Amino acid sequence: MKLSARNLIPGKVKDVTVGLVNAEVVIEVAPGVEIVSVITKNSVDRMEIKPGDEVRAMVKATSVMVVKD
Amino acid sequence: MKLSARNLIPGKVKDVTVGLVNAEVVIEVAPGVEIVSVITKNSVDRMEIKPGDEVRAMVKATSVMVVKD
Amino acid sequence: MKLSARNLIPGKVKDVTVGLVNAEVVIEVAPGVEIVSVITKNSVDRMEIKPGDEVRAMVKATSVMVVKD
Amino acid sequence: MKLSARNLIPGKVKDVTVGLVNAEVVIEVAPGVEIVSVITKNSVDRMEIKPGDEVRAMVKATSVMVVKD
Amino acid sequence: MKLSARNLIPGKVKDVTVGLVNAEVVIEVAPGVEIVSVITKNSVDRMEIKPGDEVRAMVKATSVMVVKD
Amino acid sequence: MKLSARNLIPGKVKDVTVGLVNAEVVIEVAPGVEIVSVITKNSVDRMEIKPGDEVRAMVKATSVMVVKD
Repeated sequence: MKLSARNLIPGKVKDVTVGLVNAEVVIEVAPGVEIVSVITKNSVDRMEIKPGDEVRAMVKATSVMVVKD
Repeated sequence: MKLSARNLIPGKVKDVTVGLVNAEVVIEVAPGVEIVSVITKNSVDRMEIKPGDEVRAMVKATSVMVVKD
Repeated sequence: MKLSARNLIPGKVKDVTVGLVNAEVVIEVAPGVEIVSVITKNSVDRMEIKPGDEVRAMVKATSVMVVKD
Repeated sequence: MKLSARNLIPGKVKDVTVGLVNAEVVIEVAPGVEIVSVITKNSVDRMEIKPGDEVRAMVKATSVMVVKD
Repeated sequence: MKLSARNLIPGKVKDVTVGLVNAEVVIEVAPGVEIVSVITKNSVDRMEIKPGDEVRAMVKATSVMVVKD
Repeated sequence: MKLSARNLIPGKVKDVTVGLVNAEVVIEVAPGVEIVSVITKNSVDRMEIKPGDEVRAMVKATSVMVVKD
């Protein structure tokens, strides 16, 4: 399966907070570096996402902004 | 300045491809790990983004999906 | 700090509704003109966003559509 | 026609830059306040968007971030 | 009213799940084919979206990724 | 491979327009019903997307708005 999304960053699920519609998934991608994702509760349930899971954070290139200090 | 965007990943600009309206910015965030961003050409010009720049890739949590193999 | 996001519209927080994962922030940008933002509850807590705060609504240009009547 | 998008900001098209796939539309929403949109060239052609047009910038609430100085 | 959003897919609301801030709307666009939308609870209330409604799912072209198996 | 994105709509590539940075991919999902995607030129090249390909259009639920006439 090939995905057009340019960004696929591997990491480990650290925390999952579930709401009524959405859920927040915290993924540790490097020691001390986390990526936070908000997806539907339905996807968390369907994919059985839980702390410790090896996953990849996927981001479309158009969703990435740049900050320069 | 505080930003609501949850994801701010530091890296170094590796490559910039400029089109008529948009531009693609490749940011190396770890050895061999790249994040690709598409922003407007205007922002690349205004921020003078070029290879070697220290920047941060910024992503809203809602734009992050999860892939589980 | 320079941001690639092209749209930064100043306003005053009028209302905050907090859910379990997300929160809705209503920003008055001109008399009678409001911009509504949905961000994570975590960001509202971390940034201590509350009615009366002077903030800016930030939007990436690719997220803006055009309607012509 | 009712739209779920929460943000519909009226303004006047000030500038249109057309690329091969996308186009950038600058909308003046108040004196000195502009909102920039990137849509497809196809939409600019189909809607005949040109400087001087009265339009509305439409943004889904989830695409709005908050900046607090 | 002309919309720059390139994707407008007609369907019938099948299910609505309401949270504190967001709501999930399931739209059946063809027999057995559903499109899921997450919008604010406020929009569901304001538009009185309920099962059986004829609606259209609207998606900006930049939000569509491609998967090739 | 499990994807959190809720919307995966099968179709056939009908047309590809390539720019300097982005490309527009038109996918026919039903007779007369098209979904338009804008992804990077790089992804079109890497995935060798061309007319006739069987693909799926992928959309995160948060990117779907609702229109009610």
